Amino acid sequence: MSGFLEDFRIMSTFGATAGGGVDRQAATTADGETRAWFQGWLAAHGFTVEIDGIGNIFGMRELVPGAPWILAGSHLDSQPLAGRFDGAYGVLAAAHAAQSVSEAVAAGDVVPRYNIAVVDWFNEEGSRFKPSMMGSAVYTGLLPLDEALGTTDPAGTSVAAALDAIDGRGGFTGIPVAAYVEIHVEQGRALEEAGAVIGPVADTWTARKIELIVRGEQAHTGAAQMRDRRDALYGAARVVVAVRDLIDAFEAEQLHTAVSELHLEPNSPVAIAREVRLLADVRAPDRGILDDAVTRLQGELEVIAESARVDIEIERVVEWSSGPFDERGLALIEEIAAAHGHATLRVPTVAGHDATNMKERVPTLLMFVPSVDGLSHNERELTSDADMLAGLEVLSGVLSRLIAGESTIAEAS
Amino acid sequence: MSGFLEDFRIMSTFGATAGGGVDRQAATTADGETRAWFQGWLAAHGFTVEIDGIGNIFGMRELVPGAPWILAGSHLDSQPLAGRFDGAYGVLAAAHAAQSVSEAVAAGDVVPRYNIAVVDWFNEEGSRFKPSMMGSAVYTGLLPLDEALGTTDPAGTSVAAALDAIDGRGGFTGIPVAAYVEIHVEQGRALEEAGAVIGPVADTWTARKIELIVRGEQAHTGAAQMRDRRDALYGAARVVVAVRDLIDAFEAEQLHTAVSELHLEPNSPVAIAREVRLLADVRAPDRGILDDAVTRLQGELEVIAESARVDIEIERVVEWSSGPFDERGLALIEEIAAAHGHATLRVPTVAGHDATNMKERVPTLLMFVPSVDGLSHNERELTSDADMLAGLEVLSGVLSRLIAGESTIAEAS
Repeated sequence: MSGFLEDFRIMSTFGATAGGGVDRQAATTADGETRAWFQGWLAAHGFTVEIDGIGNIFGMRELVPGAPWILAGSHLDSQPLAGRFDGAYGVLAAAHAAQSVSEAVAAGDVVPRYNIAVVDWFNEEGSRFKPSMMGSAVYTGLLPLDEALGTTDPAGTSVAAALDAIDGRGGFTGIPVAAYVEIHVEQGRALEEAGAVIGPVADTWTARKIELIVRGEQAHTGAAQMRDRRDALYGAARVVVAVRDLIDAFEAEQLHTAVSELHLEPNSPVAIAREVRLLADVRAPDRGILDDAVTRLQGELEVIAESARVDIEIERVVEWSSGPFDERGLALIEEIAAAHGHATLRVPTVAGHDATNMKERVPTLLMFVPSVDGLSHNERELTSDADMLAGLEVLSGVLSRLIAGESTIAEAS
Repeated sequence: MSGFLEDFRIMSTFGATAGGGVDRQAATTADGETRAWFQGWLAAHGFTVEIDGIGNIFGMRELVPGAPWILAGSHLDSQPLAGRFDGAYGVLAAAHAAQSVSEAVAAGDVVPRYNIAVVDWFNEEGSRFKPSMMGSAVYTGLLPLDEALGTTDPAGTSVAAALDAIDGRGGFTGIPVAAYVEIHVEQGRALEEAGAVIGPVADTWTARKIELIVRGEQAHTGAAQMRDRRDALYGAARVVVAVRDLIDAFEAEQLHTAVSELHLEPNSPVAIAREVRLLADVRAPDRGILDDAVTRLQGELEVIAESARVDIEIERVVEWSSGPFDERGLALIEEIAAAHGHATLRVPTVAGHDATNMKERVPTLLMFVPSVDGLSHNERELTSDADMLAGLEVLSGVLSRLIAGESTIAEAS
């Protein structure tokens, strides 16, 4: 498995930052370099490489002609100034695991009932092009391809143009998937605090992304009378505070809220903002809490609009639902981890993953390895070599059992 | 005076916006076009044109070889999506007034004791390059030339590079100025509400521009535990609200506050901001109120830093002082206005002007004409043709009297 660590080190050089992380937002040059290297790796190891219309990269090993596929993967793109593990670890682990399973099949140690493929989903992060998890959303039919391709970044570049600039689109239309498996870093502290190495993901939190526009009127920051002002940034700032303070009405850590993106017009030091766009991110383990929180927020928005003399419009709401993962998948992960002596802890995922989209369509298994201090979307994000290798070991075992048809989970499709 | 309105119409086409305003931030192409047209106008009317090291444009008519100069002007640059009157009216009015005074001298109707010059001060607005009133600050020695030239816009372009791109720098070192005169739109409602046409400016409010950096830690907006977060945007939003709410502790309209510019890193929908930079603009008619307000704000910053778990650093403070304008200048403006039948009202200026800088060095006269609804830094900013012509009439009369040495104000230098 030392080959894995060496490949991970090489992969982490693409878009590497001075702070020890990576910066490779979707369809940037750095993302394009990582994707090119990954395609080269797949081809060199005997995978057939195909790219679909939204830039998802598939590497396929046909073991049983005509049989359905077990698909494993994650994403190679990152947030700005992000860690090198988020997504990229899962893609490389899937590739190495698929390779070792293919070798076991070739050696006669595993008798396959399914084919095996790995995938790099395009634009999981959604920092440059919204929404996040775009590639898997298009693949699963949750987002129309045309809508995704027409989405623009803040500079006005479309997904289609950005993908073409890195030679990132193809005509592949996909494979029949019997089960999807993803391994990812936890982005939380539960595994670390419990001393567990493998976290079978049992539940997904519900998340709602609310895009808001606050409208006021441009005026002189100094000269305009205070009573005449309709200050869009003052209104937006009160919305940011209200979103955060929603958590006070709920039990600790039962509601996560944030605003992290905000665009002002004109953003001049001497002209009151006429418009501010922002995105409120609200998440909860169940939909009842989320609905309650959003209802409270809507009340707050009305109060703010009136007292700050601004208009507040909800432009778009994107949501993914909570729900449990298949018990058979959880049991399989636990069985393989136990066989290798790795402690497990069932955990929820608060973050969305491509597995969140795939879960809507096919039997899906998601597992975590620990993140030091739960730090993520940060250059200092860290998972130890030992934990990465433990995760690879378990992922390989899980894929081997799925390929051999020894779990009934893939039958559900 | 119909020539003035026609020239104003032509000038307003440079950087014209669909909303009826202009957008010509300092040293942009649109600013460059306006400056080129203005230099052409000056040369065509017999002015000697010179440009200094920070891009201030001077047009000179030497009437009395070796004598000091009466200087009149304002600025041609604008805020983003701004009105066409702010600054530009004052520059063109100065040019037309200087031209008519020069003609009166040539006709023998005025015997000059001073020379006359007009000026377009570079970057009064400060929206692209901070601080505002840059050209007059350099000219008066309040800001070192090198520091101004090295200042960069948010895209990283320096003032020097931006000026060179519009061929906007020269080697002119200035003229001995006996008095400075500026006419500007009011950007407030006092004249309109009083039915006055000419507003001799009697006082300047004190303004303090406080540049703040709020630092937190980048993390996942969904997955990070709420208790672990150090959200720079949450901290910054509370600062924005605190700055605005400072006014509640003072009498109405005795304190003006705003935050209108804010830069987030990384400004991603899924990564908590690690850093937010913002500028707080605090103004009051006297320094006591301002100091009281800023002391209160500092207390608020400490509370916010602790409770939001962020660091707040004051990076830079720029201030201009309050103070009265010379009584002789006010009396002269009132006398000329009365002679032409224009009602006057002495007003303060809350906004800074190039006259605010010049006032620190030479006898300075500043006068306003009305702004409809007090609206400014907005495409809908409006001053009527009649009010523009009234202002031009009074400015011409004032310059004529100053050139002839009939007011003692210029003797002070």
